[in-house]
Amino acid sequence: MRFTQSSLIVGELATGQELSIPVYRLPAQDLGAPKVFIQANVHGAEVQGNAVIFQLMKQLETMDVQGEVTLLPLANPLGINQKSGEFTLGRFDPITGVNWNREYLEHHCDIPAWYQQHSHLSDTELYHDFRLMLLAGCDAHLAQSWGVTTGKRLAVSLQKLAHQADIVIDLHTGPKSCKHLYCPEYDQHAASYFSIPYSLIMPNQFGGAMDEAAFCPWWQLVEYAASQGREMTVPVSAFTLELASQERIDMKDALVDAMGILAYLSHRGVVADKVEPVAMARYGCLLADYKKYHAPKGGLVEYLAAPGVLLKAGQPLANILRLDCYGTQEELTSVQLAQDCVPILHFASASVYQGTELYKMMTNIFEL
Amino acid sequence: MRFTQSSLIVGELATGQELSIPVYRLPAQDLGAPKVFIQANVHGAEVQGNAVIFQLMKQLETMDVQGEVTLLPLANPLGINQKSGEFTLGRFDPITGVNWNREYLEHHCDIPAWYQQHSHLSDTELYHDFRLMLLAGCDAHLAQSWGVTTGKRLAVSLQKLAHQADIVIDLHTGPKSCKHLYCPEYDQHAASYFSIPYSLIMPNQFGGAMDEAAFCPWWQLVEYAASQGREMTVPVSAFTLELASQERIDMKDALVDAMGILAYLSHRGVVADKVEPVAMARYGCLLADYKKYHAPKGGLVEYLAAPGVLLKAGQPLANILRLDCYGTQEELTSVQLAQDCVPILHFASASVYQGTELYKMMTNIFEL
Amino acid sequence: MRFTQSSLIVGELATGQELSIPVYRLPAQDLGAPKVFIQANVHGAEVQGNAVIFQLMKQLETMDVQGEVTLLPLANPLGINQKSGEFTLGRFDPITGVNWNREYLEHHCDIPAWYQQHSHLSDTELYHDFRLMLLAGCDAHLAQSWGVTTGKRLAVSLQKLAHQADIVIDLHTGPKSCKHLYCPEYDQHAASYFSIPYSLIMPNQFGGAMDEAAFCPWWQLVEYAASQGREMTVPVSAFTLELASQERIDMKDALVDAMGILAYLSHRGVVADKVEPVAMARYGCLLADYKKYHAPKGGLVEYLAAPGVLLKAGQPLANILRLDCYGTQEELTSVQLAQDCVPILHFASASVYQGTELYKMMTNIFEL
Amino acid sequence: MRFTQSSLIVGELATGQELSIPVYRLPAQDLGAPKVFIQANVHGAEVQGNAVIFQLMKQLETMDVQGEVTLLPLANPLGINQKSGEFTLGRFDPITGVNWNREYLEHHCDIPAWYQQHSHLSDTELYHDFRLMLLAGCDAHLAQSWGVTTGKRLAVSLQKLAHQADIVIDLHTGPKSCKHLYCPEYDQHAASYFSIPYSLIMPNQFGGAMDEAAFCPWWQLVEYAASQGREMTVPVSAFTLELASQERIDMKDALVDAMGILAYLSHRGVVADKVEPVAMARYGCLLADYKKYHAPKGGLVEYLAAPGVLLKAGQPLANILRLDCYGTQEELTSVQLAQDCVPILHFASASVYQGTELYKMMTNIFEL
Repeated sequence: MRFTQSSLIVGELATGQELSIPVYRLPAQDLGAPKVFIQANVHGAEVQGNAVIFQLMKQLETMDVQGEVTLLPLANPLGINQKSGEFTLGRFDPITGVNWNREYLEHHCDIPAWYQQHSHLSDTELYHDFRLMLLAGCDAHLAQSWGVTTGKRLAVSLQKLAHQADIVIDLHTGPKSCKHLYCPEYDQHAASYFSIPYSLIMPNQFGGAMDEAAFCPWWQLVEYAASQGREMTVPVSAFTLELASQERIDMKDALVDAMGILAYLSHRGVVADKVEPVAMARYGCLLADYKKYHAPKGGLVEYLAAPGVLLKAGQPLANILRLDCYGTQEELTSVQLAQDCVPILHFASASVYQGTELYKMMTNIFEL
Repeated sequence: MRFTQSSLIVGELATGQELSIPVYRLPAQDLGAPKVFIQANVHGAEVQGNAVIFQLMKQLETMDVQGEVTLLPLANPLGINQKSGEFTLGRFDPITGVNWNREYLEHHCDIPAWYQQHSHLSDTELYHDFRLMLLAGCDAHLAQSWGVTTGKRLAVSLQKLAHQADIVIDLHTGPKSCKHLYCPEYDQHAASYFSIPYSLIMPNQFGGAMDEAAFCPWWQLVEYAASQGREMTVPVSAFTLELASQERIDMKDALVDAMGILAYLSHRGVVADKVEPVAMARYGCLLADYKKYHAPKGGLVEYLAAPGVLLKAGQPLANILRLDCYGTQEELTSVQLAQDCVPILHFASASVYQGTELYKMMTNIFEL
Repeated sequence: MRFTQSSLIVGELATGQELSIPVYRLPAQDLGAPKVFIQANVHGAEVQGNAVIFQLMKQLETMDVQGEVTLLPLANPLGINQKSGEFTLGRFDPITGVNWNREYLEHHCDIPAWYQQHSHLSDTELYHDFRLMLLAGCDAHLAQSWGVTTGKRLAVSLQKLAHQADIVIDLHTGPKSCKHLYCPEYDQHAASYFSIPYSLIMPNQFGGAMDEAAFCPWWQLVEYAASQGREMTVPVSAFTLELASQERIDMKDALVDAMGILAYLSHRGVVADKVEPVAMARYGCLLADYKKYHAPKGGLVEYLAAPGVLLKAGQPLANILRLDCYGTQEELTSVQLAQDCVPILHFASASVYQGTELYKMMTNIFEL
Repeated sequence: MRFTQSSLIVGELATGQELSIPVYRLPAQDLGAPKVFIQANVHGAEVQGNAVIFQLMKQLETMDVQGEVTLLPLANPLGINQKSGEFTLGRFDPITGVNWNREYLEHHCDIPAWYQQHSHLSDTELYHDFRLMLLAGCDAHLAQSWGVTTGKRLAVSLQKLAHQADIVIDLHTGPKSCKHLYCPEYDQHAASYFSIPYSLIMPNQFGGAMDEAAFCPWWQLVEYAASQGREMTVPVSAFTLELASQERIDMKDALVDAMGILAYLSHRGVVADKVEPVAMARYGCLLADYKKYHAPKGGLVEYLAAPGVLLKAGQPLANILRLDCYGTQEELTSVQLAQDCVPILHFASASVYQGTELYKMMTNIFEL
């Protein structure tokens, strides 16, 4: 089956040209199967997710797809086209500095009040009405009389598509990074399907990102219902996949990640074909144990610890070279950590100010 | 009396050069008089505050200054030197996008617990210990073993100076702006001393800015004490003065604002000389009534409404020119608002994306 | 008569979206009347030319237009949409740094050889063939097998339109600027038609700008022919109009400049209606006498000399404020010049590095 | 022997802080041995040269150094510290867009006239006076009454140091690059000493770079003398070494390149110790045969051809992925070239506009 193509208009440039995003869709064959929404490239330099969507489409076209699939590559036309020197300045709005992935809408819904009004409904009806409420919240936000910012319009337009799905996957990358996954705690088992060795286990806290925007309200609803004595499962799954490094297109590796996503979709019944997950060691780390190491001084950095490889306490993490201090003890500083960790990503540039986020590392990792 | 000069080191560049800020200080003659801390230019393009500090210094050197005065111009050496084309890209960290004025530390202190432990103290002792607790919080944050970001180091270093003062004044500007003042609700009378026509009346809510960082913990303490039946005044006053437009140095106008600040300092007993506030109409607006108007479409903008001048409902705010739509109704769109307002500032550029924050305006203004 | 609209495609973004420019055209009623090409906004922040084109169109639609008129507003979609902070970073290619207005093609044609081959032709035929040669040069450049840069594609695409015209007008602005005009020496009389007080008289030297790209080859041809004893006039007129400051749309002032352009077009017979030039003093300055004054030190700048107003030797040009030097002779430096001049423009930002181009000024001005 | 450290002041920031560069020097033991000047990091992201200087210093301190050695790491403090997002925007002046490596001074000296006046001198005297003339030219340029730009001040300050040396080495890197060398034609044999496989053979043409600034005037002098019947060798050698990719510090690889430089310095008698060049295949390519391949369309790029590896005609160079064209022939375009070449470097980002310089490749290479 072939995907149909349409466009999502998310803004307008100063010259009047529309900011439009291609939307690819396969219709549901079974309305009971979960609906899927996958987007890529909300951060301008993080292009590999587009290649994964490309490979996904090639696979899905030959498969027996039960649930509706909506794919949105190139999700941030403003960010993707924002060059600064030889790189893509697409992490934050160039005017305001706001991170494009922190603009999603927090629904400040009064869950207890809403639940009291709707508690007589069946689970299915409850989910249906809650979803409508979330969509109405997005619409109301976009329709404000004083307008909304460029970034908010983009984010909430994407969020409306996400709220219509049961499975939401946001494809990102790190700067110089190994593959890792953001996974909500209630869905931890899902991490064993993707072709990704490291998973961050997230709590029920909204920080502005797409995955949180998709799952937090549902999780809150389910938790509140539980407090009222009603057990429900969280009906929406949402993940952020970090597909190694930014500024990289690798078609073969994209196929690997596409197959991992398909393994999960197969498990969930979105595709009827059986796709087995890759056998590999998979590790988890609580988000609270995910640490940022900041450059203790300015200088030039030799990154010694490779992302994805265990670093024992005391092993060299990086060297900081200071030519202005040649001949002193400061000329070359070896940086170590006092505890074991797995470096997940490091800064993209080899020169840093004091305080630059040098590495992000998982500590206290456990097998999944 | 002459100011002494010292340096505050707030970071280190990639080349190893220190980021240092000049600090000017007059010692107290009367230890009972309020201590003052004034900084300028935390946003790189907002330079006029430096000229105001210059004029303040020239005045203070000839006056009878009772309380300690600490002045910190050029407070963000990284931001001030960050050029992009012919302008200063100094509003946010060029690496992370984080607004330099949203990096101050929120002290997540457990006020009820702290108060229970210290409620036996006199007001003066209580204030003293609370201040020490705030300073210790800053020190602890800077000493974290994983380090802190460049922006956090800068902000918390400044905050430590601010926490030592009773009066904190942060000098900013808008993009294209008239003069206005951020003033906490409990200190509303202070607005009648500065040479500034428009004041935003702020609630007790931390949003990351210096003024809030300086007054919020104290206000929370006083409110909690009140809930426990003890009446105290908030002992710290903190204001942000927006000195018209960015990318502007005007020495004469700087003297006007310096005299306004001196009128307030005279009222507070920091200087023994009598400096009368300028007689002028002064208006207030609750922060909740301060509205952002976003560009309803992309295009070229003719700003018609001048900052600081009342705009009646239905009067033209701006024209949006769309050359790509010549010959259609979209070629020139006149924008109006449905209610009276005072435009306080508008965007610095004449070309905008859809959603760009075009104007900020006060609504429901009242005389102070 | 109404303009027809078409699009010029000048490139493609990373997301695949086309870079397109609206082209407005009125056909010739008299093929003998000069053809006109006017473009605006090649530098992204220099938007006022679009407003002038808008006003020109409104006027021309009611006039008796004899010659073909081609108008190209928003001529650099990439530059116009390139924001950096609150300003438009549209002066140079964000990837390469090359000034968008230095990318036009220099035709390295062997004029003597070409002339020998074509000297038997009548003037009209000679002009015709020369024009075809220029157009063929542009086409050949765009068709190179190794490709051309983004900026070259844009510039040469515009240049092809310009080479088809007899009158070429490129609408720019300065940073903070009064109106001024770049006028080739052989066309000096033309300066008396535009509504512009100051003109720079240009020699026959290619520096990469549109006006030079349009007139230099013709001027070289005519000079060579003169050296061979044949007198011809330069058949192409090309001007750059600097319409005051960037980041500004002013519809009324745009009408003033539109009328000035119409006065010139009326004089040249493009429009049959009589449009008189505004009576005003007009001054010239040789390009060699147009001086750049660079900041003698880093610091904050109070610009004292207003663009367009004669500054006598020794009068204050600017103050440079140095808060880090408070209390020394360096705290406030007054800058003067040793000779009379007319400041034409100054830098857009109030903080400068040592060496920043502070002012451009005309020296040795003369009445036109 | 230990290096002495001093500072070269090359400018002043807006905050007043000096732009200073560390200068390391070993004095000559034999005044007849060639003087050496090596600088690194004129482009902000090209940091590896600093590591090479570090390793050079460690080696030279233990060696028998005959000629004066001057080393200047971190040569562009403004560029090195200019961050934009996670990368270093240090290729061009952020205000003007001018490439930092195109700012060196072209001495428009009238060689024939100068030679006539000095032809009676011995070679040594002639060289001496010519060198003084070049230095005086630099001084005069810096002392201009209207000032010089920030970039010019930096470049000419560096150039003054270079003009005092007999051997000038400028350490750069490419974006994603293999090692290569710019070598003037007259010094082609020198390429066999450095640890670098590919050399670009340069003609006698000034393009604004340091190596050209150092050798061009001398080459012109020698050529003119030859035309007057006097044979001299060009007494100055100048090279640009491109040390693989930018944004990379690799201390081991830096030692490899330091040893290559030492092999050349040993050959030239700067160090008395014998350092043998590494045995390796070395290839040359005329600068005229060094080709830039521009992206034929916008899109996402999978770089397939590795820098430094021969690519046969018709082999895949890169894929251009276009998600907006999924399902059409444009979805994935394979790019090939019609001739054999060695890709030397490619663009640093995986998303490109149409026209972006995708690859630079050597064609018609020959063994050295």
